[in-house]
Amino acid sequence: MRFTINTQEFLKTLNNVSRASSSSSTMAYYQYLKLTVVDNGVLLLASNGQFTIESLIPNIQKDKQIVFDKDFGSTLVNSKLINAIVAKLPSDTFTFEIIENGLAKIEANNIVYNLNVVDSSEYPQIDLSAIGIKLILSSKDINDAISQVSFAASQKNTRPQLMAVNTESTSSSIIFTATDGARLARKEIAIDTNGVFSVNIPSKTFIEIARTLDDTKEVEVYVSDKKVLFKTDFTTISTSLIEGDYPNVKNIIPKNFYYYLEVNAEEFLNALSRVSLLSIERENVVKMTMEEGRAIISSKSQQVGSSQEFLNLFRYTGERLEISFNGDYVASAVRALNSNDVLISFLGEMKPFTITDKNNSNVIQLITPVRTY
Amino acid sequence: MRFTINTQEFLKTLNNVSRASSSSSTMAYYQYLKLTVVDNGVLLLASNGQFTIESLIPNIQKDKQIVFDKDFGSTLVNSKLINAIVAKLPSDTFTFEIIENGLAKIEANNIVYNLNVVDSSEYPQIDLSAIGIKLILSSKDINDAISQVSFAASQKNTRPQLMAVNTESTSSSIIFTATDGARLARKEIAIDTNGVFSVNIPSKTFIEIARTLDDTKEVEVYVSDKKVLFKTDFTTISTSLIEGDYPNVKNIIPKNFYYYLEVNAEEFLNALSRVSLLSIERENVVKMTMEEGRAIISSKSQQVGSSQEFLNLFRYTGERLEISFNGDYVASAVRALNSNDVLISFLGEMKPFTITDKNNSNVIQLITPVRTY
Repeated sequence: MRFTINTQEFLKTLNNVSRASSSSSTMAYYQYLKLTVVDNGVLLLASNGQFTIESLIPNIQKDKQIVFDKDFGSTLVNSKLINAIVAKLPSDTFTFEIIENGLAKIEANNIVYNLNVVDSSEYPQIDLSAIGIKLILSSKDINDAISQVSFAASQKNTRPQLMAVNTESTSSSIIFTATDGARLARKEIAIDTNGVFSVNIPSKTFIEIARTLDDTKEVEVYVSDKKVLFKTDFTTISTSLIEGDYPNVKNIIPKNFYYYLEVNAEEFLNALSRVSLLSIERENVVKMTMEEGRAIISSKSQQVGSSQEFLNLFRYTGERLEISFNGDYVASAVRALNSNDVLISFLGEMKPFTITDKNNSNVIQLITPVRTY
Repeated sequence: MRFTINTQEFLKTLNNVSRASSSSSTMAYYQYLKLTVVDNGVLLLASNGQFTIESLIPNIQKDKQIVFDKDFGSTLVNSKLINAIVAKLPSDTFTFEIIENGLAKIEANNIVYNLNVVDSSEYPQIDLSAIGIKLILSSKDINDAISQVSFAASQKNTRPQLMAVNTESTSSSIIFTATDGARLARKEIAIDTNGVFSVNIPSKTFIEIARTLDDTKEVEVYVSDKKVLFKTDFTTISTSLIEGDYPNVKNIIPKNFYYYLEVNAEEFLNALSRVSLLSIERENVVKMTMEEGRAIISSKSQQVGSSQEFLNLFRYTGERLEISFNGDYVASAVRALNSNDVLISFLGEMKPFTITDKNNSNVIQLITPVRTY
């Protein structure tokens, strides 16, 4: 096995694929990357068992030769080490070669590495077959869904399903939902779906997938019972799913409200961050007091003191309302909307409230208030 | 007590002074900052007991009004909190006011903070009197000395003196020395000294002092038995000293050598960093093999493999020599010289070697080799 390759192109793909390798895995082989020389280029594969990325570096890309004189074969190299080595190589191309059983040579200009490697037959079989319901999504849609929804997933594994982004089909859309029990984020994308599914994609994996897909346009998605597969020209990503039914959240989001606050996202976020500096004893609890012509965000700490800020840019509709919430949760929700004009809709002091773009409710953020004493 | 002040000017001084406050200190009052309104401005003081910074924000600076309508007085505020608050204030100026015993108000545009504060009489007395031997140093000289020497100080407190930068006078110079036992860094600055001293300044404090002095030109330094004081127009910094005699290192640095290697700093550092990627079992040990016309850096690991790189840019004088050392130590030493042309001078395989600027030996880096098996 042998190839000479463009250093930068190799490094780019290596960085992407390595997201899936796990230096902390108890399975030794998941610390390895599988390199395979094939007809049309060099194939890199990394996995942590749950999450796999395979990417081809084609021989020629945009009329530029990327892979030079090669010999077929396959081997396993330590992922961390090859990343560190290739990142520091001094030349435009380098040569990778198996020089004897268990020993690879990397050569570039004046430097030579002799690396202990492992026979590729030791790597577990990974199923990357494209089966199940097929969808075509833009990577922008996938990235938006991730950044607008995944932060609301739970970080604790007491209820494993809540660590997922639930991805569900309706007849004319896909709905992405994440919740940790105290807040919920939901995004709907209009699309023709060819089947009915509801799968739980681990939110951390989903975030890595979005990063990997970043510079592509169109993504084929294959949804089956056991895995979801994302396919672009040169890359295949597979994630296993979190088993079990996702909680039924359909009826949690209220339809009608009694109080409405429109705010400017930037001013609101700045005020929140200034006021919540003092909410250090209880977890970032801030209070909002609204009445005609007035909206105040405030916070109080026995130990440190108190703070309050009057909003300048807002419109409030409804009776006087006082409501307390986790300021971090509300700030994350507002930021996720990525909109200047934000609408917050309330039912009452102790009822969950929604945060949406004023002009568009494809994305709904739901927050449960906090009881104050 | 009351003042209205330019937010950015206050923040700049606050950031600087706060380096000395310690949120981890067991002494509660060292988490506080002392604010005092005086005739010519607002005085900020922070300390961790060993290290104190006092800085004046003058009423007027460069014809610009910085402090507005003020009332005399003094108070203690939580350092971390006031840093966080002022960094986020929305307006060009803000007002700080003691509104009742133990309560301060900070007001800026639409936001009001009411902060619990502590009476300034609770703060310990700190002696900032300018006594002892007086020197005038440029802040550049102090900064250079710190960056070229302090990294070699010990991080472990088994021998407290080695955690210091020893600062010693000769009749015509000051010598800064740091060593952790395995390496030593030494810088000599030609200057008329008015007395004889040898003091141990804690290296971590010295680094903070250099940062604080960054944008000033001339610094008055007062050296006494108990403390060293640094004084600029508006700032006074005091550090306590580490007691005990510094080890006698005068005769450790060899005068005559048998082997000389001149290298280009950049190529040498890059080669070191590439080769040492594989020296993971033993602490960054790399080997250098030199003979007429050839200089090779190499490294070996049972577990991972081996690496070697031939230098392109070098001149070697002497018999064949093989020497092993901590690659990190050598890289830090070379970087500290801040020079393109570096001279490494050897006495033999197991003898300490020096690293200096080829054209200037004001700074000497000394490294003890490592035994290889």
